[in-house]
Amino acid sequence: MRLTNYADYALRVLIYLGVHRERLVQKAEIAESFGISANHLGKVVNHLARKGFIEAKRGRGGGLELGAEPDKIVVGEVVGEFEPDFHIVECFDAESNACPIAPVCGLGGILGEAEEAFQSVLDGYTLADILGAPGRGRYKKLLSRE
Amino acid sequence: MRLTNYADYALRVLIYLGVHRERLVQKAEIAESFGISANHLGKVVNHLARKGFIEAKRGRGGGLELGAEPDKIVVGEVVGEFEPDFHIVECFDAESNACPIAPVCGLGGILGEAEEAFQSVLDGYTLADILGAPGRGRYKKLLSRE
Repeated sequence: MRLTNYADYALRVLIYLGVHRERLVQKAEIAESFGISANHLGKVVNHLARKGFIEAKRGRGGGLELGAEPDKIVVGEVVGEFEPDFHIVECFDAESNACPIAPVCGLGGILGEAEEAFQSVLDGYTLADILGAPGRGRYKKLLSRE
Repeated sequence: MRLTNYADYALRVLIYLGVHRERLVQKAEIAESFGISANHLGKVVNHLARKGFIEAKRGRGGGLELGAEPDKIVVGEVVGEFEPDFHIVECFDAESNACPIAPVCGLGGILGEAEEAFQSVLDGYTLADILGAPGRGRYKKLLSRE
């Protein structure tokens, strides 16, 4: 069980911007700091901006910044937005399901309840909680790859 | 976020055997009923037998049956056994992690807590709960593909 890279990268962008709030940030800088593809990151950044999680200021001197205060950016909302595939098993996608017992199977309800418990934990945390974790002072140093 | 086919198929085998407790079951029959690859299923069946979730009786008249009463087969234990990759994000696998902020990042603790909540729900249910779901009488009919 794992999150898509898409959701993972969305969270990393938010963390990076949260750590560098004193200035606008370039996309390439985030990609380099995390050692991830600038191309993949581009899609994530556009999506984050479209949903208001970040703001992209265009033109000379432009760059990215958080679209809201860190304590207003709920981890569960980010994951919910960037993790499109919450089809934990085949039958959670009615369109592609081929499992014959789906109409009566008791497993679906159990997995659904487990998924809700997972989501509910994430709904209880914000970007501020991530940034305020013990060792927060070291984020910047680790990201600068010095 | 999804379970691997491996975990999904393991649960299907257990459900199938739970629905047909009056006799030994052939592997090919399970594969056909669910419309899944007999080859994939073979690995799952061997693994289930090795862990005692099912029993494989060899020879003429042999076949598969549950290795324990349905109320002793905990859904969380099956998923834990067959879902080897609980690396919800890259840094959950210390060996392959390349994310530079892993040592201080607050996200890991949050995702770990969410995962525990997920697992804890599954630990509260057994195969008997799945088999006893409303509509249980229809399992057999749906699996016979009549």
